[in-house]
Amino acid sequence: MRVYNFSAGPPALPEEVLKRVQSKLLNYENNGMSVMEMSHRSKEYEAINDEAEALLRELMNVPANYSIAFVQGGATTQFESVPLNIYKNGKADYVVTGIWAEKAFKEADKFTDAKCIASSKEKAFSFIPKITKNDIRPDADYLHICHNNTIVGTRFNYIPSSGNVPIVNDMSSSILSEEINVADYGMIYAGAQKNIGPSGATVLIIRNDLLEMSQKICPSMLKWKSHTDAKSIFHTPPTFSIYFSMEIFRWLKEIGGVKAIEKINIDKAKMLYDHIDNSKLFANNVAKEDRSLMNVPFVSPSKEMDAKFLAEAKKAGLVTLAGHNLVGGMRASIYNAMPVAGVKALIEFMKKFEKENS
Amino acid sequence: MRVYNFSAGPPALPEEVLKRVQSKLLNYENNGMSVMEMSHRSKEYEAINDEAEALLRELMNVPANYSIAFVQGGATTQFESVPLNIYKNGKADYVVTGIWAEKAFKEADKFTDAKCIASSKEKAFSFIPKITKNDIRPDADYLHICHNNTIVGTRFNYIPSSGNVPIVNDMSSSILSEEINVADYGMIYAGAQKNIGPSGATVLIIRNDLLEMSQKICPSMLKWKSHTDAKSIFHTPPTFSIYFSMEIFRWLKEIGGVKAIEKINIDKAKMLYDHIDNSKLFANNVAKEDRSLMNVPFVSPSKEMDAKFLAEAKKAGLVTLAGHNLVGGMRASIYNAMPVAGVKALIEFMKKFEKENS
Repeated sequence: MRVYNFSAGPPALPEEVLKRVQSKLLNYENNGMSVMEMSHRSKEYEAINDEAEALLRELMNVPANYSIAFVQGGATTQFESVPLNIYKNGKADYVVTGIWAEKAFKEADKFTDAKCIASSKEKAFSFIPKITKNDIRPDADYLHICHNNTIVGTRFNYIPSSGNVPIVNDMSSSILSEEINVADYGMIYAGAQKNIGPSGATVLIIRNDLLEMSQKICPSMLKWKSHTDAKSIFHTPPTFSIYFSMEIFRWLKEIGGVKAIEKINIDKAKMLYDHIDNSKLFANNVAKEDRSLMNVPFVSPSKEMDAKFLAEAKKAGLVTLAGHNLVGGMRASIYNAMPVAGVKALIEFMKKFEKENS
Repeated sequence: MRVYNFSAGPPALPEEVLKRVQSKLLNYENNGMSVMEMSHRSKEYEAINDEAEALLRELMNVPANYSIAFVQGGATTQFESVPLNIYKNGKADYVVTGIWAEKAFKEADKFTDAKCIASSKEKAFSFIPKITKNDIRPDADYLHICHNNTIVGTRFNYIPSSGNVPIVNDMSSSILSEEINVADYGMIYAGAQKNIGPSGATVLIIRNDLLEMSQKICPSMLKWKSHTDAKSIFHTPPTFSIYFSMEIFRWLKEIGGVKAIEKINIDKAKMLYDHIDNSKLFANNVAKEDRSLMNVPFVSPSKEMDAKFLAEAKKAGLVTLAGHNLVGGMRASIYNAMPVAGVKALIEFMKKFEKENS
């Protein structure tokens, strides 16, 4: 029996897509071999690679002056790749809104003069700072933000006005979950393993002028232009991860694209936050206007009760609900693949638990 | 119907392992989820990660003073990572035995004083140079070799005597195909996609003292110690690729380990080389003592006949036999997963083709 898996990542994948991939696993489209066994230089694999890029471009409405690449290494690799690739004045501004945003800032400081221009750390990252153009150094090479913060469950609900300073946006945990205007950003990166596919692939969307600014010490593998010039086949790519992503893109398009899934995501999040806000047992401590649509943390009155909740939820088939080690409590990650039925099942369970424990 | 796939990489995988993975794809060991949906911090995934490392250590008899890590980025990432990680005197010696070895040399030269101490390039890489201790700079930080060269089909049949200079061995296309003594090398790396599993994972085996020599400009993600300290969970790893590798390791152990597969590999290669050497139509131009056990290139008397051979072979279910673009002709890659029956089928087809075209 399949469970409802609220993991923050790698998280649940759409069951329908898993079934499709499973059915073709030994013989892809009558080629007599698995996708995993295809040469990355074969016509068949190139078709997959091309379709993945075309579908992502269509789903996100990526402008023609932006390049797309699928690479390896996850967002963590991009923490260092960003300053190695966008470098002119040797200054970069960071908004520190969570553990990952802070990591990005610290890693960047090795390769540029990184400045934290705003942080919500002293309030446990429970809100998103409002920054204005005056906060940003006008000669910064870029402004880095993290759109959605998985651990505490916050989300940028505005686009900073940054003038000519391009915004680099880590969208690892929110890409394809809501409509955005790609042209508002200079560069977007995202590890695949939330809304795109299995871990092991990373999506880069880069305004073409930013491909020409890399530092000399940037290793070729971290250089974005290596991958955009080679159309994501600079070396042997993670073929299965990219194939799986392509199947996810097809699925997302079939169910109505980003516009349709955004509506579902808003409904799912509203349902869950409303229940928490109306509960006497559970609480979410994030500033309401900054709440994440993807990650919904909540706590009960005590650690003991949190533990009891997690143990009983698991027995009921609602799993991976523990909060991140650093914050404890519970966290329901409700990415694109989490069906409405999963959120409803969680709410029903929370009601029952509250009744039994009040 | 499954074909016999002679791809140089990503190549054929054992059908039995593909079937096992397929059967568990939606529900791994009754956890109610796919391996791809597991948090990399879960007990279940940690068990997979630990078993993969333990099995590799057992299969290769890795000494206790060596660390193992599973990382992303393939061998191409290691071309740059090696000089970024092993750096003391800022000198490194390279033996250039093929296109990939040459790439490794050129990429390294960005981060150290890389010297090509021997090359077979002027004879189209058709042999392995014999190097002696006198060829190696005594203060080189390491000596880099590529054990098996996939394009032209050569293999190091000796271990260079390098004194105190540690040997770094790119074993991407030969790891686990024959017994080696790990202690003969300072560091071994291998992209997974030949004898280990799907592309997207890379195996590192590093003598512990070499973990302490990295350059300051080495990005954390390329720093070996980041990954060995974190037991391959420094960031979200390519969980599915590592899981699949673990299933390959289990399979290899079941069929008798490296010793048993080495015997099969020698038999397969001998069968094919003997047939080519006795043929009047086909030829292999590699120095006999340096022939690869994994990649067997051969040519017919003309490009036209090569093309005819490839087209007819494909119809007979013998696919991906084209040689690398740079050399043309044919190439049969016969990694661990290629069954003896596949090689026999190829030989039978070659006989039939020769009869019809003489």
